[in-house]
Amino acid sequence: MTAGDRARHERFLLAAIDAAAAGITKHNGGPFAALIVRDGAVVATGFNAVTSTNDPTAHAEIQAIRAACRALGAFQLDGCDVYSSCEPCPMCLGALYWARPRAVYFAATRADAAAAGFDDAFVYDELARAPAQRALPFTRLDLPDANRPFKEWLALPTRVRY
Amino acid sequence: MTAGDRARHERFLLAAIDAAAAGITKHNGGPFAALIVRDGAVVATGFNAVTSTNDPTAHAEIQAIRAACRALGAFQLDGCDVYSSCEPCPMCLGALYWARPRAVYFAATRADAAAAGFDDAFVYDELARAPAQRALPFTRLDLPDANRPFKEWLALPTRVRY
Repeated sequence: MTAGDRARHERFLLAAIDAAAAGITKHNGGPFAALIVRDGAVVATGFNAVTSTNDPTAHAEIQAIRAACRALGAFQLDGCDVYSSCEPCPMCLGALYWARPRAVYFAATRADAAAAGFDDAFVYDELARAPAQRALPFTRLDLPDANRPFKEWLALPTRVRY
Repeated sequence: MTAGDRARHERFLLAAIDAAAAGITKHNGGPFAALIVRDGAVVATGFNAVTSTNDPTAHAEIQAIRAACRALGAFQLDGCDVYSSCEPCPMCLGALYWARPRAVYFAATRADAAAAGFDDAFVYDELARAPAQRALPFTRLDLPDANRPFKEWLALPTRVRY
């Protein structure tokens, strides 16, 4: 990373940290924010809004991805960089893979989030366990019809892949 | 699991599979659906709507969680069971941890999804890698301000934990 690149990344990350701190009172949510940047311009800023909107999926990165995709009219973040005040939790990490930005930068870690009372590290640990060993029980029932939706999907000539 | 419990779970899972197949054309999305059930009644049904709504986070489970939380006026799925036509991807698995239902049941597997062209298994593999080894680069920049949002959060007496 060149010094110029690092300075640019730090500037956007500091903006994400400022937004995270401001969001606690401004958006009545957890202390997290994320910025999505394309060609040097901020496309969207996402604030945690779990408790203010009764939406457990309203983490900063998810909110930012949704807003950026709306702004861009696309379901992919081609050529975008994501700046998150904190290491994305597994939900947000998964969301970032589906959104396919160019790169992700973050400041605080999952351990910092855990120290502030958030479950991020716990969820990472749970993901690594076999479904039957998890605190939240995941049970697969083997049904003969399970693959029918996939078969119908693959037979549909007009399907849009993502 | 008693035979009666299994029959009940199978009934809701079959409904999720039917919804997944119907959703391909009805909701113009991927072949996935999820039901959220409380006290034997369906609280919400979620359909994949990634391409129809330009929202890469609009997976069936996320849509179902958001709709159920709206219906229940809560950011937790206390006492709810989730029935997903397919094993939740890491994003949805993380979302389920944050939503905290009682249990999750699914039919098809991540391997079935991969065979139909979806990245679920790939994202699971990526999650297990160190950030620097991932296909999507995650970079932490160590900034002195990184923990400021958490400090301000912990100092706020009115904060709502989630």
